[in-house]
Amino acid sequence: MVDTWQHRHILSLSNFTPTDYDTVIRTAVSFRDVLSRRTKKVPTLQGRVVTNLFFEPSTRTRSSFELAAKRLSADVLNFAPGSSSLTKGETILDTAKTYLAMGADLMVIRHKAAGVPHVIATELDRLQSGVGVLNAGDGQHEHPSQALLDLFTLCQVLNPDHPHIDSLQGKKIALVGDIIHSRVARSNLWSLTACGAEVHLAGPGTLLPPGFAQAFQRSPVDPPGLTRRIVQHATLEPALVDADFVMTLRLQQERMTQHLLPSLREYHQQFGLTHDRLKICKPEVKVLHPAPVNRGIELSSALMDDPARSLIAQQVASGIAVRMSLLYLIGTRGRDAVLLDE
Amino acid sequence: MVDTWQHRHILSLSNFTPTDYDTVIRTAVSFRDVLSRRTKKVPTLQGRVVTNLFFEPSTRTRSSFELAAKRLSADVLNFAPGSSSLTKGETILDTAKTYLAMGADLMVIRHKAAGVPHVIATELDRLQSGVGVLNAGDGQHEHPSQALLDLFTLCQVLNPDHPHIDSLQGKKIALVGDIIHSRVARSNLWSLTACGAEVHLAGPGTLLPPGFAQAFQRSPVDPPGLTRRIVQHATLEPALVDADFVMTLRLQQERMTQHLLPSLREYHQQFGLTHDRLKICKPEVKVLHPAPVNRGIELSSALMDDPARSLIAQQVASGIAVRMSLLYLIGTRGRDAVLLDE
Amino acid sequence: MVDTWQHRHILSLSNFTPTDYDTVIRTAVSFRDVLSRRTKKVPTLQGRVVTNLFFEPSTRTRSSFELAAKRLSADVLNFAPGSSSLTKGETILDTAKTYLAMGADLMVIRHKAAGVPHVIATELDRLQSGVGVLNAGDGQHEHPSQALLDLFTLCQVLNPDHPHIDSLQGKKIALVGDIIHSRVARSNLWSLTACGAEVHLAGPGTLLPPGFAQAFQRSPVDPPGLTRRIVQHATLEPALVDADFVMTLRLQQERMTQHLLPSLREYHQQFGLTHDRLKICKPEVKVLHPAPVNRGIELSSALMDDPARSLIAQQVASGIAVRMSLLYLIGTRGRDAVLLDE
Repeated sequence: MVDTWQHRHILSLSNFTPTDYDTVIRTAVSFRDVLSRRTKKVPTLQGRVVTNLFFEPSTRTRSSFELAAKRLSADVLNFAPGSSSLTKGETILDTAKTYLAMGADLMVIRHKAAGVPHVIATELDRLQSGVGVLNAGDGQHEHPSQALLDLFTLCQVLNPDHPHIDSLQGKKIALVGDIIHSRVARSNLWSLTACGAEVHLAGPGTLLPPGFAQAFQRSPVDPPGLTRRIVQHATLEPALVDADFVMTLRLQQERMTQHLLPSLREYHQQFGLTHDRLKICKPEVKVLHPAPVNRGIELSSALMDDPARSLIAQQVASGIAVRMSLLYLIGTRGRDAVLLDE
Repeated sequence: MVDTWQHRHILSLSNFTPTDYDTVIRTAVSFRDVLSRRTKKVPTLQGRVVTNLFFEPSTRTRSSFELAAKRLSADVLNFAPGSSSLTKGETILDTAKTYLAMGADLMVIRHKAAGVPHVIATELDRLQSGVGVLNAGDGQHEHPSQALLDLFTLCQVLNPDHPHIDSLQGKKIALVGDIIHSRVARSNLWSLTACGAEVHLAGPGTLLPPGFAQAFQRSPVDPPGLTRRIVQHATLEPALVDADFVMTLRLQQERMTQHLLPSLREYHQQFGLTHDRLKICKPEVKVLHPAPVNRGIELSSALMDDPARSLIAQQVASGIAVRMSLLYLIGTRGRDAVLLDE
Repeated sequence: MVDTWQHRHILSLSNFTPTDYDTVIRTAVSFRDVLSRRTKKVPTLQGRVVTNLFFEPSTRTRSSFELAAKRLSADVLNFAPGSSSLTKGETILDTAKTYLAMGADLMVIRHKAAGVPHVIATELDRLQSGVGVLNAGDGQHEHPSQALLDLFTLCQVLNPDHPHIDSLQGKKIALVGDIIHSRVARSNLWSLTACGAEVHLAGPGTLLPPGFAQAFQRSPVDPPGLTRRIVQHATLEPALVDADFVMTLRLQQERMTQHLLPSLREYHQQFGLTHDRLKICKPEVKVLHPAPVNRGIELSSALMDDPARSLIAQQVASGIAVRMSLLYLIGTRGRDAVLLDE
């Protein structure tokens, strides 16, 4: 299945084809099986070095990539900006080249500025390094591994035994909240529409400007038959009607000080999710959130803690299997790698 | 021997029976033997994930648990609050549930508030997670692994070849200093008295109020024949007379600014340990301290550095064997685990 | 070859003989071969514990030692001063003794004060611990592993197939910049002159006082025939004429606030390296820098990024092989260790 995989890096989902998503989901299913075994480790990346370059702090995503790498038997180097040469004025590219020279095989990069992983990947390619870069979140641009774990979570809910992207065809997915500032929303827009879901955006006008969705209507790699379906709404209700899934996004507290929102209470009243609000969705509707959650703002505590509705824990669990897949697909590209043998 | 082990978590020693202490000491003896070998690793927890959730910073205890886990071949995830989602407003329970969803098998938790490990353990049980929680220090409540490594240190001194809790029967142990604020003192009160030692408390009235010891007279799990013996003193000398061991506690500098003590010098004059002061103890008396030590305050530098008197290095070394035991006992509970084979 | 190795610690290169340098280079060649294999790990230090005690922050050197240790299959404990007991007033020696008691086999130590690794090593020897100390940079004193990786880099350039210290005989090496504050310069002065290179120092008078080189004319361990050749210059040009290599040193920004330099621009005009400046060197001249580089100050960006001139990436890569060698030589001293078998 991996024969069709062409990506040296994972920087954006704008250039992912349905076949790519299919490959990620199939590989993640394999690793899900590994994770259900007593010994949850495989020797796939034994002796390889995964460097986590997190210029922007993150416990959740860094730990997830770290654990995924360790379960593939890779050695992990964590870069902590606080104790780093960056305080000595070193450029980001020089930092990346230092880890390249040390022998890094894969770099997982998060930065508050959009495009940093792309710039580093370009330089590593120019140097013919063979090192693969995984974007772990760059500014308000993209967060591909989050969207891919969301995708795997959805496929698993729809078909637990044989998760497959085809099961998303025709599903209605509401994407709610601070969309304009969200790298998670952008990556999800690419993946969900490519797999045939109909995405309904809803958020306050300051966080979801008219025409936002137009940039996601078509990717150069789209196969001829693919139509991406996105609808924008100024209020929550039309997005929720008959929705199969509702994804809500983290609201940064600084949106208040930026005067983009009147108050957290008003935001929750208009766009916060509750059991009551979900009554107009499909009966079996499920809720996703990239976490960490502001309880009582994006969604009620009761809803977040309701295992019949909330997929948040499954999203985190999917993160390990999906990130193992991405490290495997990038890290063994062009090599005769062994996936599961011990 | 492990058949009698009933604890899913180690949160407090108030519910430990003499049999539990015996199990810990016997297991620690096994791991002490492992640590004397050329290759100090065993595959006991291969493929399992130990997460260190240290909401309160600690090098010593965190490193000790980390090394113990690595010597059991576990993968270790360290949670650093400084670079964490806590700065984004996530609740502590949500953080714990995130690591649960990632696949943590064991959580080692330190927090400045009493009860946090208990609250997390309760939630993990409610979710039927099977994850074990080890309290690595919660506020002024308990620090069970410290008291258990103290116990192992005492048993080793009393009977180097066959360390056993019975050797503590009738020993006089002085516990000196800032007792009211000490989680180490509380855990040690439970363990030492359960093993038959007579504990003599001594400290300034502001740090050892009358009646403090009453709460430790009896545990619901005490076997019928067990009498816990604790004596309080307002001055140091009566606690030291004929003592077999003297445990002194770390004095937090902020006790001065809280006006609980007039000065460090006066504290040292009244409750600081020196070679001279120990002359009224048993001739072979030994001194323990949970460290880090304020040299010249809790005890003199000369005494701290005297290998004939100070057990501080042995306490640290015992920490590895004892924490390996605790991770083993909790981590392999209900599983057909292999202790030492390679 | 290792039979001649006598060092229990690596604290300074002032007591290194040509035979010692030869041993390090030969061992590094072996590990370079390991690093060219598909699986870049050897079990040499399996079950041993390497503790990184970095009291002064450093990403680059700490990561390099960490990866070197992991490629030898050691377990690594990183000490982070920010979250440490040092904030509780513990002494540095007590911190080191804590890690000794936990079972550290090797300690890699960086501190802003000269002599700290030496003081710790002396105490560990007094305790007959058998633990080896590697100085990873102490104040303005020495940085032995940096000079040894520089040496390995030079030997590799001069004889890629069979790197050997003899190839340095008679080479002219310019050492440029803030020499008086540089631990890298001091360690390199010892190693380069011992291997027969002629070292030409150049820097502003405030950073290179007259007579500086006299302290490096002779070491007590020098074999009878060894003459160390060092020349000081007040300007850059005479140091560069016919130079085979130019090593430039990092300029700390605080040299301005200390009024040791008028401005960064003037420093670059007088001592900054550019392609143009290098025209008076040997045609095949190469440039080294310990990094991180202040681009446009110590050397121009164009020069730094010119693979035909800059050895900076090779220095970083050499760091892994050399530090594996040092950990191996110190960590297996007196033991029947296996270098490469798996």
